[in-house]
Amino acid sequence: METGNLYGRIPTQLPEEFVQVLATGHGTRIEKIVSKGHSSPPGFWYDQAENEWVLLLKGEAGLRFEKDDRVMHLTEGTYVNIPAGERHRVEWTAENTETIWLAVFY
Amino acid sequence: METGNLYGRIPTQLPEEFVQVLATGHGTRIEKIVSKGHSSPPGFWYDQAENEWVLLLKGEAGLRFEKDDRVMHLTEGTYVNIPAGERHRVEWTAENTETIWLAVFY
Repeated sequence: METGNLYGRIPTQLPEEFVQVLATGHGTRIEKIVSKGHSSPPGFWYDQAENEWVLLLKGEAGLRFEKDDRVMHLTEGTYVNIPAGERHRVEWTAENTETIWLAVFY
Repeated sequence: METGNLYGRIPTQLPEEFVQVLATGHGTRIEKIVSKGHSSPPGFWYDQAENEWVLLLKGEAGLRFEKDDRVMHLTEGTYVNIPAGERHRVEWTAENTETIWLAVFY
Protein backbone atom coordinates (compact mmCIF):
# COMPACT_ATOMS: atom_id res chain seq x y z
CA MET A 1 0.00 0.00 0.00
CA GLU A 2 1.38 3.34 -0.96
CA THR A 3 1.78 5.61 2.02
CA GLY A 4 3.79 8.67 2.92
CA ASN A 5 3.65 12.06 4.52
CA LEU A 6 2.49 15.02 2.50
CA TYR A 7 4.82 17.36 4.35
CA GLY A 8 7.88 15.21 3.71
CA ARG A 9 10.08 15.14 0.57
CA ILE A 10 10.21 18.83 -0.12
CA PRO A 11 13.33 19.77 -2.08
CA THR A 12 15.38 22.55 -0.50
CA GLN A 13 15.87 24.24 -3.86
CA LEU A 14 12.82 24.88 -6.01
CA PRO A 15 13.94 26.39 -9.32
CA GLU A 16 10.68 25.01 -10.72
CA GLU A 17 7.49 23.82 -9.09
CA PHE A 18 7.78 20.34 -7.62
CA VAL A 19 5.08 17.89 -8.75
CA GLN A 20 4.58 14.38 -7.38
CA VAL A 21 1.79 12.06 -8.51
CA LEU A 22 0.47 10.35 -5.38
CA ALA A 23 -2.22 8.16 -6.89
CA THR A 24 -3.75 7.59 -10.27
CA GLY A 25 -6.40 5.37 -11.83
CA HIS A 26 -9.92 5.31 -13.29
CA GLY A 27 -9.50 8.78 -14.77
CA THR A 28 -8.43 10.31 -11.46
CA ARG A 29 -5.01 11.71 -10.65
CA ILE A 30 -3.91 13.02 -7.27
CA GLU A 31 -0.88 15.31 -7.19
CA LYS A 32 1.18 17.09 -4.60
CA ILE A 33 2.56 20.38 -5.87
CA VAL A 34 5.07 22.60 -4.08
CA SER A 35 5.55 26.22 -5.15
CA LYS A 36 7.75 28.97 -3.76
CA GLY A 37 7.22 32.31 -5.40
CA HIS A 38 6.19 30.61 -8.63
CA SER A 39 3.39 31.90 -10.80
CA SER A 40 2.03 31.13 -14.25
CA PRO A 41 3.97 32.79 -17.09
CA PRO A 42 2.55 36.15 -18.27
CA GLY A 43 -0.48 35.61 -20.47
CA PHE A 44 -0.66 31.89 -19.72
CA TRP A 45 -4.00 30.33 -18.76
CA TYR A 46 -4.69 26.78 -17.64
CA ASP A 47 -7.52 25.47 -19.81
CA GLN A 48 -7.98 21.89 -18.73
CA ALA A 49 -10.01 19.01 -20.11
CA GLU A 50 -10.40 17.61 -16.58
CA ASN A 51 -12.08 19.01 -13.53
CA GLU A 52 -9.62 19.98 -10.81
CA TRP A 53 -10.32 20.09 -7.10
CA VAL A 54 -7.45 21.85 -5.39
CA LEU A 55 -6.63 22.36 -1.72
CA LEU A 56 -3.98 24.71 -0.35
CA LEU A 57 -2.38 22.93 2.61
CA LYS A 58 0.39 25.33 3.56
CA GLY A 59 1.53 28.74 2.40
CA GLU A 60 -0.52 31.22 0.44
CA ALA A 61 -1.47 31.91 -3.17
CA GLY A 62 -3.60 33.92 -5.58
CA LEU A 63 -5.61 32.21 -8.34
CA ARG A 64 -6.99 34.35 -11.14
CA PHE A 65 -10.08 33.30 -13.06
CA GLU A 66 -10.57 34.76 -16.50
CA LYS A 67 -14.36 34.71 -16.43
CA ASP A 68 -14.90 37.30 -13.75
CA ASP A 69 -11.36 38.64 -13.71
CA ARG A 70 -10.90 38.27 -10.00
CA VAL A 71 -8.03 36.93 -7.93
CA MET A 72 -9.04 34.43 -5.27
CA HIS A 73 -6.80 34.54 -2.21
CA LEU A 74 -6.08 31.06 -0.90
CA THR A 75 -4.80 30.47 2.62
CA GLU A 76 -4.29 27.30 4.66
CA GLY A 77 -7.28 25.01 4.21
CA THR A 78 -8.86 26.83 1.25
CA TYR A 79 -10.18 24.53 -1.44
CA VAL A 80 -11.74 25.32 -4.78
CA ASN A 81 -13.38 23.15 -7.39
CA ILE A 82 -12.36 24.26 -10.88
CA PRO A 83 -14.59 22.83 -13.61
CA ALA A 84 -13.00 21.65 -16.86
CA GLY A 85 -12.55 24.56 -19.26
CA GLU A 86 -12.58 27.21 -16.55
CA ARG A 87 -9.58 29.29 -17.52
CA HIS A 88 -7.37 30.19 -14.57
CA ARG A 89 -3.79 30.98 -13.69
CA VAL A 90 -1.61 31.10 -10.62
CA GLU A 91 -1.13 34.82 -10.09
CA TRP A 92 1.30 34.49 -7.23
CA THR A 93 2.51 32.18 -4.45
CA ALA A 94 4.27 33.09 -1.20
CA GLU A 95 7.94 34.02 -1.64
CA ASN A 96 9.13 33.30 1.88
CA THR A 97 7.67 29.85 2.48
CA GLU A 98 6.69 26.74 0.52
CA THR A 99 3.13 26.59 -0.71
CA ILE A 100 1.87 23.01 -0.71
CA TRP A 101 -1.12 22.09 -2.88
CA LEU A 102 -3.10 18.92 -3.19
CA ALA A 103 -4.73 18.67 -6.61
CA VAL A 104 -7.27 16.06 -7.64
CA PHE A 105 -7.91 15.87 -11.40
CA TYR A 106 -11.07 13.98 -12.27
CA MET B 1 -17.23 27.72 -8.34
CA GLU B 2 -17.47 25.79 -5.13
CA THR B 3 -14.97 26.96 -2.58
CA GLY B 4 -14.55 26.81 1.18
CA ASN B 5 -12.12 26.13 3.97
CA LEU B 6 -11.46 22.58 5.04
CA TYR B 7 -10.93 23.66 8.63
CA GLY B 8 -14.23 25.51 8.79
CA ARG B 9 -17.69 24.08 9.47
CA ILE B 10 -16.78 21.62 12.21
CA PRO B 11 -19.77 20.90 14.46
CA THR B 12 -19.06 21.41 18.15
CA GLN B 13 -20.83 18.18 19.05
CA LEU B 14 -19.88 15.03 17.19
CA PRO B 15 -22.13 12.16 18.35
CA GLU B 16 -21.35 10.57 15.00
CA GLU B 17 -18.65 11.19 12.44
CA PHE B 18 -19.28 14.25 10.28
CA VAL B 19 -19.14 13.66 6.54
CA GLN B 20 -19.30 16.36 3.87
CA VAL B 21 -19.06 15.66 0.14
CA LEU B 22 -16.86 18.39 -1.33
CA ALA B 23 -16.88 17.36 -4.98
CA THR B 24 -18.19 14.51 -7.06
CA GLY B 25 -18.26 13.50 -10.72
CA HIS B 26 -16.83 11.04 -13.26
CA GLY B 27 -16.68 8.24 -10.69
CA THR B 28 -14.72 10.35 -8.21
CA ARG B 29 -15.96 11.55 -4.84
CA ILE B 30 -14.07 13.83 -2.46
CA GLU B 31 -15.16 13.85 1.16
CA LYS B 32 -14.20 15.67 4.32
CA ILE B 33 -14.65 13.49 7.41
CA VAL B 34 -14.35 14.65 11.01
CA SER B 35 -13.93 12.11 13.81
CA LYS B 36 -13.44 12.56 17.54
CA GLY B 37 -12.81 9.35 19.41
CA HIS B 38 -14.80 7.42 16.81
CA SER B 39 -13.79 3.99 15.59
CA SER B 40 -15.34 1.29 13.44
CA PRO B 41 -17.78 -0.96 15.33
CA PRO B 42 -16.25 -4.19 16.73
CA GLY B 43 -15.83 -6.75 13.99
CA PHE B 44 -16.67 -4.27 11.21
CA TRP B 45 -14.45 -4.02 8.14
CA TYR B 46 -14.69 -1.58 5.27
CA ASP B 47 -14.66 -3.63 2.07
CA GLN B 48 -15.06 -1.09 -0.70
CA ALA B 49 -15.69 -1.38 -4.41
CA GLU B 50 -13.75 1.87 -4.99
CA ASN B 51 -10.15 2.76 -4.37
CA GLU B 52 -9.72 5.22 -1.54
CA TRP B 53 -6.89 7.69 -1.15
CA VAL B 54 -7.06 9.16 2.33
CA LEU B 55 -5.08 11.97 3.97
CA LEU B 56 -5.08 12.80 7.66
CA LEU B 57 -5.00 16.58 7.93
CA LYS B 58 -5.32 17.10 11.67
CA GLY B 59 -5.48 14.87 14.73
CA GLU B 60 -4.37 11.26 14.91
CA ALA B 61 -5.75 7.82 14.11
CA GLY B 62 -5.03 4.11 13.79
CA LEU B 63 -6.08 2.17 10.68
CA ARG B 64 -6.08 -1.63 10.86
CA PHE B 65 -5.63 -3.72 7.73
CA GLU B 66 -6.91 -7.27 7.81
CA LYS B 67 -4.31 -8.70 5.43
CA ASP B 68 -1.26 -8.27 7.57
CA ASP B 69 -3.09 -7.53 10.81
CA ARG B 70 -1.19 -4.38 11.55
CA VAL B 71 -2.33 -0.99 12.77
CA MET B 72 -0.97 1.94 10.80
CA HIS B 73 -0.50 5.06 12.91
CA LEU B 74 -1.54 8.19 11.01
CA THR B 75 -0.42 11.64 12.10
CA GLU B 76 -0.72 15.05 10.44
CA GLY B 77 0.11 14.74 6.77
CA THR B 78 0.02 10.93 6.53
CA TYR B 79 -1.68 9.62 3.42
CA VAL B 80 -2.44 6.09 2.35
CA ASN B 81 -3.81 4.64 -0.84
CA ILE B 82 -6.26 1.82 -0.07
CA PRO B 83 -7.02 -0.34 -3.10
CA ALA B 84 -10.60 -1.52 -3.64
CA GLY B 85 -11.29 -4.68 -1.66
CA GLU B 86 -8.51 -4.08 0.85
CA ARG B 87 -10.34 -4.72 4.12
CA HIS B 88 -9.61 -2.14 6.78
CA ARG B 89 -11.14 -0.48 9.81
CA VAL B 90 -10.62 2.62 11.89
CA GLU B 91 -9.15 1.21 15.08
CA TRP B 92 -9.12 4.50 16.95
CA THR B 93 -9.10 8.28 16.55
CA ALA B 94 -7.89 10.92 18.99
CA GLU B 95 -10.27 11.54 21.91
CA ASN B 96 -9.13 15.04 22.82
CA THR B 97 -9.12 16.74 19.43
CA GLU B 98 -10.90 16.54 16.09
CA THR B 99 -9.35 14.31 13.49
CA ILE B 100 -9.92 15.71 9.99
CA TRP B 101 -9.64 13.40 7.00
CA LEU B 102 -9.74 14.08 3.31
CA ALA B 103 -10.89 11.00 1.39
CA VAL B 104 -10.85 10.63 -2.38
CA PHE B 105 -12.85 7.65 -3.68
CA TYR B 106 -12.01 6.78 -7.27
